[in-house]
Amino acid sequence: MKLLYSQFSPFVRKIRVLAHEAGLADRIEIAPVEVRPTLANPEMAAAVNPARKIPALILADGTALSDSTVIALYLDELSGGRLVPTGPARWTALTDHSILQAATDAAVLIRYETALRPEALRWPDWVDDQWSRIVAALAWFESRPERLEGSFGLVHAALGCFLAYLDLRFADRPWRDAHPRLAAWQAETERRPSFETTKPQ
Amino acid sequence: MKLLYSQFSPFVRKIRVLAHEAGLADRIEIAPVEVRPTLANPEMAAAVNPARKIPALILADGTALSDSTVIALYLDELSGGRLVPTGPARWTALTDHSILQAATDAAVLIRYETALRPEALRWPDWVDDQWSRIVAALAWFESRPERLEGSFGLVHAALGCFLAYLDLRFADRPWRDAHPRLAAWQAETERRPSFETTKPQ
Repeated sequence: MKLLYSQFSPFVRKIRVLAHEAGLADRIEIAPVEVRPTLANPEMAAAVNPARKIPALILADGTALSDSTVIALYLDELSGGRLVPTGPARWTALTDHSILQAATDAAVLIRYETALRPEALRWPDWVDDQWSRIVAALAWFESRPERLEGSFGLVHAALGCFLAYLDLRFADRPWRDAHPRLAAWQAETERRPSFETTKPQ
Repeated sequence: MKLLYSQFSPFVRKIRVLAHEAGLADRIEIAPVEVRPTLANPEMAAAVNPARKIPALILADGTALSDSTVIALYLDELSGGRLVPTGPARWTALTDHSILQAATDAAVLIRYETALRPEALRWPDWVDDQWSRIVAALAWFESRPERLEGSFGLVHAALGCFLAYLDLRFADRPWRDAHPRLAAWQAETERRPSFETTKPQ
């Protein structure tokens, strides 16, 4: 399998972390690709996914899977269910994961607003609104420590990659003091081989 | 179950369509809620989802499920698997659905850029880029008519709601002439009770 890849994408990193955790990493080759709004890529849009988004996972028969939620569920199936719980806990885990997807999307939208959009066209209210979603997501997990119990899987990978992305792009907006449980959890998570191996250089 | 609802959200409508198609609609009560960037809603962020996004489905025990992908998979399970195929076709269907999610997200981002953001701060390149994702998604399905065969389910609901959202918000950007297969498919789909019942007023 081939994973379309950028080292700075938190969504791609989550898939790489999950592949490591599930013992599938050596079956996945990574293929660097540059994607961002305003950069056309008609081949990718026609053959992989029309929104030119990564990660995409190309299977041996050429089938291209996306987005990262779908790829994560696929890796869960390949691994015999090691990444997502079953029963009622499945729906809580998938919801927590979608909450982290939305928070990571908010972070990426702030990045586009503050690094890609021409300076004269930036809208502080937009940034504030997106940042408020990030703060609310941090509060969600800080106040629900039980959600981080259980074996390391989809939610843990998404949370670790989200927090690392905040550190990478928003070092000027510290989050640890107000969220000590998350800070302690992250310090431990960053020492897992799956995170050490996939750290952006 | 209670569905947090806005009649104009294509993501909410998809869930209502799926509930109708799976025979679950009479088990779901709808609860109107107003959401948009720059409109704070701390109660919703703390109790439902931090990004204040709809749809969210509140179960009898108070558990709040989101986003629409998770809710769709939950309805699929409740219905005994009527909405998403199994086996290898499951991954193609989930990928096609994620493609439609990304295209609908692009449409919503254009709406925010052109109706919510102050006029002096709008960036035409951003709109063009998002629109190019929509055009590529239309081409994806126009050139893959086999993806629309099979029993009506997740991909069909998402495609029908996406096309109807284009008609609702972008009547000045006609898509039918260049995509005759999709136009014919949509004309038929709009006559399904699940679409007639959920049409925005």
